[in-house]
Amino acid sequence: MQVTKRSDCPAACALDLLGDRWTMLIVRDLLRGRDTYGKLAASDEGIPTNILADRLKKMEQTGLIEARPYQERPLRYAYALTGKGKDLGAVLEALARWGKKHVKGTVIPKEFRSRR
Amino acid sequence: MQVTKRSDCPAACALDLLGDRWTMLIVRDLLRGRDTYGKLAASDEGIPTNILADRLKKMEQTGLIEARPYQERPLRYAYALTGKGKDLGAVLEALARWGKKHVKGTVIPKEFRSRR
Repeated sequence: MQVTKRSDCPAACALDLLGDRWTMLIVRDLLRGRDTYGKLAASDEGIPTNILADRLKKMEQTGLIEARPYQERPLRYAYALTGKGKDLGAVLEALARWGKKHVKGTVIPKEFRSRR
Repeated sequence: MQVTKRSDCPAACALDLLGDRWTMLIVRDLLRGRDTYGKLAASDEGIPTNILADRLKKMEQTGLIEARPYQERPLRYAYALTGKGKDLGAVLEALARWGKKHVKGTVIPKEFRSRR
């Protein structure tokens, strides 16, 4: 998928690909092993299912994730971050550090706690 | 300003405050010394002026920036990042590193090059 570039600034281009507030949370959940549509739909943030389906499609088109079938009838997919997608872990970590410091009452999800 | 929390995840809360693709670019431009409405409006990305005005107002309400008058007639403001806003530099840097690595043709703005 071609994404229209607003400029040649790498941060602007990264934000163009990340799009909105949801994509990084899908990255977070994939990083903690939630790899199916059902598991991703069950996030604490209550992502609307139409948004989840749209973002998964876009993330596949922009090379952040790969989908592979894990069941035939009915056909179901498991999602995995590509190398490009996994590299977003550093952005997620920077966001989480900032949120932990500046937003009262936030808690690092348990799956990530041992890394800090 | 109260921002509705989607969850207690610090990354989700950070994304709630950052909101969309524009806020981080305003942070970028403030970090490189573009401190007035006119200078911020002149970014390469061509931020629509209604969005710029809205984001500056929200960023002031959420404590990311402070506005101080620098001219009386007509009244004009200069904007500066607070400590909380400056701390977003680490998020910006992570975004820029990712964009530089994964989006072809991106160029780190010259004001930031000496830092890398």
